Amino acid sequence: MRRSALFAALLVAACATAPAAESPPAPSLAEILEMSPAGDWRAVDPENTLYMELPGGRVIIELAPEYAPNHAANIRALAHAHYFDGAAIVRSQDNYVVQWGRDEGDATSMGEGRPALAPEFDRARAGVQITRLPDPDSYARETGFASGFPVAGNGARTWLTHCYGMIGAGRGDTADSGSGAELYVVIGQAPRHLDRNITVVGRVLRGMEVLSVMPRGTGPLGFYETPQERTAIRSVRLGSDLPASERVNLEALRTDSATFNSVIESRRFRRESWFLDPVGHINLCNVPLPVRVRP
Amino acid sequence: MRRSALFAALLVAACATAPAAESPPAPSLAEILEMSPAGDWRAVDPENTLYMELPGGRVIIELAPEYAPNHAANIRALAHAHYFDGAAIVRSQDNYVVQWGRDEGDATSMGEGRPALAPEFDRARAGVQITRLPDPDSYARETGFASGFPVAGNGARTWLTHCYGMIGAGRGDTADSGSGAELYVVIGQAPRHLDRNITVVGRVLRGMEVLSVMPRGTGPLGFYETPQERTAIRSVRLGSDLPASERVNLEALRTDSATFNSVIESRRFRRESWFLDPVGHINLCNVPLPVRVRP
Repeated sequence: MRRSALFAALLVAACATAPAAESPPAPSLAEILEMSPAGDWRAVDPENTLYMELPGGRVIIELAPEYAPNHAANIRALAHAHYFDGAAIVRSQDNYVVQWGRDEGDATSMGEGRPALAPEFDRARAGVQITRLPDPDSYARETGFASGFPVAGNGARTWLTHCYGMIGAGRGDTADSGSGAELYVVIGQAPRHLDRNITVVGRVLRGMEVLSVMPRGTGPLGFYETPQERTAIRSVRLGSDLPASERVNLEALRTDSATFNSVIESRRFRRESWFLDPVGHINLCNVPLPVRVRP
Repeated sequence: MRRSALFAALLVAACATAPAAESPPAPSLAEILEMSPAGDWRAVDPENTLYMELPGGRVIIELAPEYAPNHAANIRALAHAHYFDGAAIVRSQDNYVVQWGRDEGDATSMGEGRPALAPEFDRARAGVQITRLPDPDSYARETGFASGFPVAGNGARTWLTHCYGMIGAGRGDTADSGSGAELYVVIGQAPRHLDRNITVVGRVLRGMEVLSVMPRGTGPLGFYETPQERTAIRSVRLGSDLPASERVNLEALRTDSATFNSVIESRRFRRESWFLDPVGHINLCNVPLPVRVRP
C-alpha cells in the first residue's frame, strides 16, 4: 500500500517551482541541455577515446592528455597493440575501485607501449583554464573543471581528482611503476586521498553501470581469489583505430561554456519542487559532466 | 607481463614508514583496532538492528533513533509485522541509490506501522556530542560523528548525512509523506544535497556488497521496467525479534572513543609507504566506521 513512486521526483528534471510568484520557473537540467547552443559541446576526439568491450556491455573512456600526456600516449600504444584483449577484471572492492589488467609474467606484447613511466600526478597550474567551484573542499584549496575533467589545485599545481568514474593507472610502491597497463575506475565515494599519489588518466563517458556492478572480490582489497571469478575483457580499441562506422560520435559539454555554468548552478540550487531545502552548495564530485551522442 | 599487484598496497594495513628515522612507525588501521580497549566498542542494540535476507546474502542495518526516533519506531513496527517480507528491490540508479519497498496499492499489513510520518530531517544540536572533523566540508559548517553515524551541523541543528551505505526513507513531494516503508541506500558519491531534504534512518553495517551490485535499472531514475528485473526480499527481521542464536553479535567502534580518533588521524595522514603524499585531509564520508563481531 505504500509506494513513494513520487520519491522518483528526487532527480526528475521536472519544471521547478519558482521561489517567488513573479520569477520565471528555473529551467531543469534537461531543459538547460536542450537549450544549449551547439558550440557549447565538443566532439570527443577518437584519438582520446577507448572502447572496452565486456560481456555486460561496452564502456567508453576518454583519456586526459592535458594532464597525463605520456600515460595517454602509452595507453593508446597498448590499445593499438591489442594488449588489453583477453585481459580481465581482477579486482572489485566495494565503495572503492574496479581494476583490470594482466597477470604478472603474462607475455602479451605491449607493442610500442612501455611497462613503466614517470609519474604524472599533477602539472603546472599556469596555462590551465579552470571553471572554479565556489564551495570549500575537504582536500584542496581550489576545485573545478578543466578540459572536461574534475580537477583540484593549490595555486602552483593542478591535478585530476578521483571522482566517481575517473580512471587511474595502478602502480607499485615507487612513483614510476605505473604505465596504464593496469587501470582502475572509482566506483564509490571519491577516494581523494589518492589524488597526487597516482596518475589519473581519464574517465568513463559511457558504461559505468557495466563496471560498477562487478561482483565484489572476496580476497584482500577486493581482488578475486580464483580465475573463474574474473570477467574477461573481449577487446579495448582506440577510437581512431576503429572504422568510423563503428564509433559512437559522443559529444561532451564544454566545461568552459555558459551552459556548463548553468548546469553547476542548477545543481547547487535545487529548485525542483521536491526539494524543501534548496541546498546552495555542491562538491566537485557531485557535478554531472553531460555527454550525448552528436545530434 | 605487467601486473601491479603492488597497487594492492593502496589500502594495505602494512607497517607504515616513519617520517623521521627516530620516530616509531605509525600503527596501521588494523593495528589501531587490534590494540583498542574493549570499552571503545559498543554492542549494536538488537532493538536497532535489521536483518534483511536477499538471494545474494544478508544485509545488517543499524537504525539511528537518536536522530530519527519516530521513523526508527515505525520501521521496527513494520519489520515486526513482516511487512518487508516479499517486498522487492525496485530501483538501482548508478552512483546514487538502491531502493526497496512495495507497490502502491499493495495490501500487505503494516501491523502497528504507519504509512506517513512527520519529517525528522534534523534535530537540535544541543545535547549531542559530536566528534568533529577539522577539514572543511562543501555542504556544512560542521561535520563529524555522533552515536556511530556521520553527521553535519550548522550551530543550532545537526543531521545525519548521506554518506555511502547510509539509509533514508523515501518520500513524495511533501515533507510528511515518508515513513520508512520505502527505503533507499546510498551506493555512490555521497548525495549530500539530500541532507535535510529527506529523513535518514540508519546505515548498513554488513552486506553493502550485496546491495551495491544490483543490476542498474533502465527506467527513469534507475527504476526497473519489469517485475522480472526486481530482486525479492525474503525477509526483514528486527534483531530483537530473532532468537539470540540467530543474531550476529556485532560491535561498532564508539565514535566518541580515543581509538576512533586514532582511526581518523590514520586516515587523514597516510603514513603507509605506498603514499608519496601523506594527504593530511579527510572528508566526512571517507572515514571508515569499524564494525566487528564481538570477540
